[in-house]
Amino acid sequence: MKLKPLADRVVLKLVEAEEKTKSGIILTGSAKEKPEVAEVIEVGPGGLVDGKEVTMTVKVGDKVITSKYSGTEVKIDGEEYTIVRQSDILAIVE
Amino acid sequence: MKLKPLADRVVLKLVEAEEKTKSGIILTGSAKEKPEVAEVIEVGPGGLVDGKEVTMTVKVGDKVITSKYSGTEVKIDGEEYTIVRQSDILAIVE
Amino acid sequence: MKLKPLADRVVLKLVEAEEKTKSGIILTGSAKEKPEVAEVIEVGPGGLVDGKEVTMTVKVGDKVITSKYSGTEVKIDGEEYTIVRQSDILAIVE
Amino acid sequence: MKLKPLADRVVLKLVEAEEKTKSGIILTGSAKEKPEVAEVIEVGPGGLVDGKEVTMTVKVGDKVITSKYSGTEVKIDGEEYTIVRQSDILAIVE
Amino acid sequence: MKLKPLADRVVLKLVEAEEKTKSGIILTGSAKEKPEVAEVIEVGPGGLVDGKEVTMTVKVGDKVITSKYSGTEVKIDGEEYTIVRQSDILAIVE
Amino acid sequence: MKLKPLADRVVLKLVEAEEKTKSGIILTGSAKEKPEVAEVIEVGPGGLVDGKEVTMTVKVGDKVITSKYSGTEVKIDGEEYTIVRQSDILAIVE
Amino acid sequence: MKLKPLADRVVLKLVEAEEKTKSGIILTGSAKEKPEVAEVIEVGPGGLVDGKEVTMTVKVGDKVITSKYSGTEVKIDGEEYTIVRQSDILAIVE
Repeated sequence: MKLKPLADRVVLKLVEAEEKTKSGIILTGSAKEKPEVAEVIEVGPGGLVDGKEVTMTVKVGDKVITSKYSGTEVKIDGEEYTIVRQSDILAIVE
Repeated sequence: MKLKPLADRVVLKLVEAEEKTKSGIILTGSAKEKPEVAEVIEVGPGGLVDGKEVTMTVKVGDKVITSKYSGTEVKIDGEEYTIVRQSDILAIVE
Repeated sequence: MKLKPLADRVVLKLVEAEEKTKSGIILTGSAKEKPEVAEVIEVGPGGLVDGKEVTMTVKVGDKVITSKYSGTEVKIDGEEYTIVRQSDILAIVE
Repeated sequence: MKLKPLADRVVLKLVEAEEKTKSGIILTGSAKEKPEVAEVIEVGPGGLVDGKEVTMTVKVGDKVITSKYSGTEVKIDGEEYTIVRQSDILAIVE
Repeated sequence: MKLKPLADRVVLKLVEAEEKTKSGIILTGSAKEKPEVAEVIEVGPGGLVDGKEVTMTVKVGDKVITSKYSGTEVKIDGEEYTIVRQSDILAIVE
Repeated sequence: MKLKPLADRVVLKLVEAEEKTKSGIILTGSAKEKPEVAEVIEVGPGGLVDGKEVTMTVKVGDKVITSKYSGTEVKIDGEEYTIVRQSDILAIVE
Repeated sequence: MKLKPLADRVVLKLVEAEEKTKSGIILTGSAKEKPEVAEVIEVGPGGLVDGKEVTMTVKVGDKVITSKYSGTEVKIDGEEYTIVRQSDILAIVE
């Protein structure tokens, strides 16, 4: 079973808390936006979104920081995923 | 009796809870957006919507995940349907 | 006496509850949007609406489902009508 | 003394309640928008309004139904008028 | 001392209440927008405002009716003025 | 130390209250917008701002009236400054 | 480990309070926007953002004043960073 995101959407899988501690990444969230480190699992095709051309710049496997504000959580085969728009991704962690 | 959606609208029928359990899909909803798995029953023609060209990318029979936020529920001949805009569809489940 | 809607507006007449029961259409309304089945009585000319070209796709006699959100009710010669924008019409019932 | 509306504005004069009863028009107002039958007294020149080309389609003498939502009431020489944008006019009553 | 309004702004001076009574203009204000009769004292140059071309159509000396909603009051050399955008001017009184 | 504003931003320094009294300028502020007389200290380059071309029309040394609504106050080397967008400047005082 | 911001985003590192005192910069924050002096650590590529061309004008090493309104705080390898859009940067401090 697989999620194919539409338009400028991206399927993310949160990096586990253990892994976060190992890599030294600790996130401090404000009340407004809860940032999270997540791995890109699937990337939508981009194209015309709300009348504006969107080019997808993240790719599968990227570790990204997002603001969780407009994401939707889905659980498939026991795994939890988050679907966000690419514009909700703030930065790639290298 | 049949629903023909206008513009970028799509008629969906929720996949039953039983079926969801069988396929291993369990949805966790946030307070803001209640995601749902649904089957596409009818697809609008797309075209100019609010002055912007929209191409329909979902097709009848697709299983999709939506945010229920702006959908409208209708019951016809004893069956319940939901009408959403295509932009409210987050991903196709394969 | 006759209503000639301007721009992208459409004059609707609600289909009576009796008729709804006969045809098997029962509407379940959410708190946010109250869907209704109505017949199209008059159709505006379309054209430039808020700077965007609108083509009218519904025609007189269509049975439609609308979200009542932005409609305005008017009573003329003892008959009640609702005036909506075409974009408030979700689907045509066939 | 005369009001010359700017841009896409229209000066209206409410049709008296007596006249409304005679013609058989009774308006039922929702909480959100109070519809009214009014006569067009003056019409603005249209043209570029908020960067969008507006063509005036109502003319002096038209009986119109408006949503009173954004109108402004003015009393000149003892007569009350309402100034609305043309887009606040829903339909012409013929 | 003189005010030179920028962009699509206009400097107005309220017509005194006495004068209003003489000319027979009495304004009835709704809770939302307080209409006022004022004289145009200075007119901005217009041009590109928020990316849209604006042509100034009022001129110094015009008596205008405004909605006071977004105006700013200033007192210079003992005289009170109001600065509004031209789009806040509803009509010219002739 | 010097502030170089970006895009359509302007650095202002409030004209002291004493000076205001001398020149006869007294400002009456509404609850919504507190107007202020200030001197232009630095002017941003203008150009494409939020996708729209902005030409800077104020210059260093201009005395301006602003609505303080979206300004940000900064203190550098003991002097207080306010940074606003040019569109927040209502008029130049001459 | 390194943050690569997307689109028009910029990674900032707050200048320490001690340094601020030394340089004589003291910031007074309003309730709405808390201005901060920060150093630019990483700059996104710019390009089409929400359908509008954005050119990045800040560069790594710039000291900038921002409104913290829409920033997201991240801690990597024990260092705290803030990710903002370039349009949230008010001025460069020289």
